[in-house]
Amino acid sequence: MSLLTIGTMAFDDIQTPFGHAEKVIGGACTYITWSASYFTNSISVSSIVGHDFPDAEIEALKSRGADLSGVEVKMDGKTFFWAGKYHDNMNQRDTLATDLNVLDDFNPILPDSYKACKYIMLGNLTPAIQAQVLDQLDGSQKLIALDTMNFWMDIAMDELKKVIGRVDLLTINDEEARQLSGEYSLLSAAEKIHEMGPEYLIIKKGEHGAMLFHKGKIFYAPALPLALVKDPTGAGDTFAGGLMGYLAKTDDTSFENMKRAIIHGSAMASFCVEEFSIDKLKTLDEEKINARVQQFKTMTDFSL
Amino acid sequence: MSLLTIGTMAFDDIQTPFGHAEKVIGGACTYITWSASYFTNSISVSSIVGHDFPDAEIEALKSRGADLSGVEVKMDGKTFFWAGKYHDNMNQRDTLATDLNVLDDFNPILPDSYKACKYIMLGNLTPAIQAQVLDQLDGSQKLIALDTMNFWMDIAMDELKKVIGRVDLLTINDEEARQLSGEYSLLSAAEKIHEMGPEYLIIKKGEHGAMLFHKGKIFYAPALPLALVKDPTGAGDTFAGGLMGYLAKTDDTSFENMKRAIIHGSAMASFCVEEFSIDKLKTLDEEKINARVQQFKTMTDFSL
Repeated sequence: MSLLTIGTMAFDDIQTPFGHAEKVIGGACTYITWSASYFTNSISVSSIVGHDFPDAEIEALKSRGADLSGVEVKMDGKTFFWAGKYHDNMNQRDTLATDLNVLDDFNPILPDSYKACKYIMLGNLTPAIQAQVLDQLDGSQKLIALDTMNFWMDIAMDELKKVIGRVDLLTINDEEARQLSGEYSLLSAAEKIHEMGPEYLIIKKGEHGAMLFHKGKIFYAPALPLALVKDPTGAGDTFAGGLMGYLAKTDDTSFENMKRAIIHGSAMASFCVEEFSIDKLKTLDEEKINARVQQFKTMTDFSL
Repeated sequence: MSLLTIGTMAFDDIQTPFGHAEKVIGGACTYITWSASYFTNSISVSSIVGHDFPDAEIEALKSRGADLSGVEVKMDGKTFFWAGKYHDNMNQRDTLATDLNVLDDFNPILPDSYKACKYIMLGNLTPAIQAQVLDQLDGSQKLIALDTMNFWMDIAMDELKKVIGRVDLLTINDEEARQLSGEYSLLSAAEKIHEMGPEYLIIKKGEHGAMLFHKGKIFYAPALPLALVKDPTGAGDTFAGGLMGYLAKTDDTSFENMKRAIIHGSAMASFCVEEFSIDKLKTLDEEKINARVQQFKTMTDFSL
């Protein structure tokens, strides 16, 4: 089934205890699309880049089967740029620079061929732009997923809640779930968030895994413990890409299949963090992915 | 099989966002023994209390089948007292008072009948006292487990490492595993800690569950998300008690059975935090425990 991915394509400058990656490829949409491309080659991408974004990166995504006709190339502007530095524990980071550049003019006009995509992944963006994308869809969608962050809760909570009310699946982290709901217990937070609209909620907990909430049911997926985490940037987007790619491939939104989708998303995220930027995501294949998915099964399986 | 539990019996004063429990029953050994008592009635307890410790609490433990002949009652002293206040997020707490009282004189002399216990749970105590208990065992043990905390790593690391080198199973939290090993990655930390001696390592992650490491194998048990956590005090001890009680009951230290033991320990801990002190632990039965264990299975189960 067809998947539409929307979000940023960017240059990142990333400092972690393991090195400094200068002006490397980043952006939510980039990670989402690379990750999803291992599950489906029917991906339509909506984003914006400047004159400085490498053609080779566009071609690399096209060679994965993605349709990039909805990616605007603004020749008089520069690509969105983000610089960040991770603390020693890798769980916290400081933003050193955010240059919106062409992102300031992002006005996604979907090509007609995009509007009937069955699976939609709205990457982290201003809620207004996420709503604008939803306005253009033809209403035939099977599952619309939205990712967001605390920044929008701080400055645009009302707008954010409106767009959350229009989607089927929300992915946020635990602190964001608490902020959005006003509840500390994730169980109570999930109840409140379901009332806002999404019947599926995924709470991401980084190195502690992810939890799926749906109609009173809970699934807890661990993260894979790794010997080396070089760069956590894009892990959440890679997770979302694997999840939505798997759903688009299998075209099954049952709770049981959603669990499998989360495990596949978690496996993709575990690859992502092992190298800077999208370096590791470019090197995968079905065999490597399946082997890692099996590790999740082995790690959580028990009989009573 | 017989289980020996060693640790503090105490009065606690606990403040959480949900209330203030003054001079309630606490102590690692109390939590461990209550928890284990739902799995085996062959428990030998070694601890120390003052003249002020309620007889009714001693009798309550005896009525669970525990042998308390190894609990010294020091009539000229007061019971160990700890006061703490939890922050709003319940993950952090400040210690307001620690009155060692009779604990300062704790010199555990095991009754002869204790020395051949097959399963040993050394609750958090000074490493010297933990070693003193080990010295008295007859060498026929099947599994010796030790719990400790960062405090002993700060002030008695060498002694602690020596006693860790004598046990089969170490239970610590994630920050303590990092401090003990000098490794940030839990995978690398586990490798280092195995080299210190214990062939089983359980890293407790509070609301994020627990991980078991053994000969390159990993098991990840989640914590149960709860609508209300009233008082986290004793959760780790209750976990250890359920784990060791289950092992003593089943007398099987295979990796597969250790997984089941961890799930049972996690279920017991999930009850513990729902009320202050040992209040909830006093109200359980096999049916309630099995129902909760089944929730863990449901929450983690998936097919590929």
